[in-house]
Amino acid sequence: MTPTIAVLGLGAMGLPMARHLAQSFTIRSYDIDASRCSAAADFSTACGSAKEAATGADIVLLAVRNRDQLAEVLWGSDGVVPVLVPGSVILLTSTVGIDVVRDVAHQLINQEMLLVDAPVSGGPVRAGCGDLLVTVGADDTAYGKALPVLEAMASTLKRVGPRPGDGQCMKTVNQLLCGVHIAAAAEALALARALGLDPAAALEILGAGAAASFMLGDRGPRMLKAYDEGGAEVLSRLDIFVKDMGIVTTAARGVGVSTPLAAAAEQVYLMGQAHGMSARDDSSVITVLAPTVS
Amino acid sequence: MTPTIAVLGLGAMGLPMARHLAQSFTIRSYDIDASRCSAAADFSTACGSAKEAATGADIVLLAVRNRDQLAEVLWGSDGVVPVLVPGSVILLTSTVGIDVVRDVAHQLINQEMLLVDAPVSGGPVRAGCGDLLVTVGADDTAYGKALPVLEAMASTLKRVGPRPGDGQCMKTVNQLLCGVHIAAAAEALALARALGLDPAAALEILGAGAAASFMLGDRGPRMLKAYDEGGAEVLSRLDIFVKDMGIVTTAARGVGVSTPLAAAAEQVYLMGQAHGMSARDDSSVITVLAPTVS
Repeated sequence: MTPTIAVLGLGAMGLPMARHLAQSFTIRSYDIDASRCSAAADFSTACGSAKEAATGADIVLLAVRNRDQLAEVLWGSDGVVPVLVPGSVILLTSTVGIDVVRDVAHQLINQEMLLVDAPVSGGPVRAGCGDLLVTVGADDTAYGKALPVLEAMASTLKRVGPRPGDGQCMKTVNQLLCGVHIAAAAEALALARALGLDPAAALEILGAGAAASFMLGDRGPRMLKAYDEGGAEVLSRLDIFVKDMGIVTTAARGVGVSTPLAAAAEQVYLMGQAHGMSARDDSSVITVLAPTVS
Repeated sequence: MTPTIAVLGLGAMGLPMARHLAQSFTIRSYDIDASRCSAAADFSTACGSAKEAATGADIVLLAVRNRDQLAEVLWGSDGVVPVLVPGSVILLTSTVGIDVVRDVAHQLINQEMLLVDAPVSGGPVRAGCGDLLVTVGADDTAYGKALPVLEAMASTLKRVGPRPGDGQCMKTVNQLLCGVHIAAAAEALALARALGLDPAAALEILGAGAAASFMLGDRGPRMLKAYDEGGAEVLSRLDIFVKDMGIVTTAARGVGVSTPLAAAAEQVYLMGQAHGMSARDDSSVITVLAPTVS
C-alpha cells in the first residue's frame, strides 16, 4: 500500500515538495492560507485543518515558515500531536534553529513521537523535481522510517548526526555562507557600478576566477535587474535571510564563535526588511547598499 | 630580435612571472633582496640595481608589494624613470589602489612614459605557468606595446577600460569578494566545529551546494590544517589581504558605497596581523575567530 504523507505548509517550498512527492506517495495537504490548499487540490487530498490532514498519515511532513508556526502546528488549537498515534514520524523540513528543534524533539519524545530534523536547501524549482540538498539529524529508527520520503525529495541526502538539531547545525553553517555570499555579491556589484565599470562585464570576469561563488552566479544576474521597474522576479524572499541570519548569529553566540561577517550580513537583511523589502527577491539587497543607480 | 623585459620585484608573484616570461623574452631582473636576485640568475640577467635592469629594456614590468615600493622604484634613489627614454612602457602588475595608479599615471604622462595598469590574480603557481587573470586599464598605444607580454602572462586577459586605474578598479572589486569569501569560510568552518559537526564532512557538503565558493574550495582544506603544528603551508600571505581590503574599503568610501561585509573582513585580517600572523597563510584567519580547537 502506498504510504500516506500529510504535508502541512504549502508555501514556496511545501507546495512543490508536495507536488513532487505525490508521484510516489498519497498526499493529504493543508495550509493556513486557503488559496494554497486549492493549489494543492489537483494532486492531493486538500484538507480543512491540520488535524484532518494528519489523521491516519504515516508521516507528517512540516514545511512551516518559522518556530512560531512550528509550535502552532504541533500544539496549537489545530495542532496535530493529539491526533497522532505513538511512534508517528514528524519530518521537519524547515530551518527554525538548533535549540528550537532540540526542544521540540525533547517534548515529542515524551509524547512518543519521532522527530526527523531535515532542513532542505535548493529553492522552489529544485523542490519541485526532488533535487534538494537535505541535511538530517535523526536516530536510526526515525531515519529509517523517513528514508523513502527523504530519498524522494533529495538529490543530495546527508545524515550529519543522530540527534534532531544536527541537521539544523549543518543548515545553519550553510546559511551563514549563503547569506554572506549574497550580501557580498551585492557589495561587489554596487562598487563595480560606482567605480564606472560595466556591471555585467564585471560579473562575468568575477565569476570566472577566485572571486566566484554559487550565489554570485545565481543572484548576480538578478541584482543587475534590481533597479528595473518592479525589481527581479521573486525566487527567494529577502526575509528568509532575516530569519536565517538570526539563527546563524544566535547559534554562533551560543557556542562562543565570533562571526563578524555574518553579523554584518544580518544587518543588511534587517535593513532591507526595514525598508519594506521583506517580500522582494533577496537580490534586492543591492538596493539597500546602493539605493539608486548613479 | 627578442624584446627585453626588466622585471623589478622578484617576490611571490614576480619571480614565477619572470621565470615564465623568460621562455619568450630576454629578462633583466632585480629585487631589493639580494637572495631573490640570485633565485632569478638561472633564467635572467640578475642586475645590481633597478636602474641597471631598466636601462635599455623595451618594457619595465613592476611586481612591487605596495604603493611605497612603487614610488621608490619609479622616483627613489634607485628609481628607473631617469634612465627610461620617452615612450617607454611601464607594466604594473601589482594591486596598489585606484587613486595611486591614477596619480602615478598622471605624473608619468608628464615624463612621456606610458603606464599599463595590469593587476594580476591567481597566485604564485598560476603565475609560473602563464595562467593568471589580468585586468587591464591602458590606452590603445600602451596596451598595444604591452600586449605580447600580457598575453604570455595571462590565461584570462580583460581590458576593462582605457585609463590606468581601470584595471585596479576591477581588481578591487575582485578582492572584495576574495577577502570576504575567505573570512566567511573561516567563520563557517569555525562554527561547524564548535557546533560539533565534523569540519571535513561539513566542508564537503558546503562545497557541493549553494554555499560553495572558489575560496571555500581552495582555502577550506588549508583551514582544516590551521591548527596543526606550524599551520598550513604559506601559499598566500595574510597581510596581502590587510593591504587589499584597505584598498577595497578606501575605494568604496571614495564613491560612497556602503560595504559592511568588506569592512568586517578588513577587521579580521587586521586582527590577524595584530596577532603576529602577517606572514602566515591567509587561511589562518580561522584561528583569529576561533583561536583553539574546542
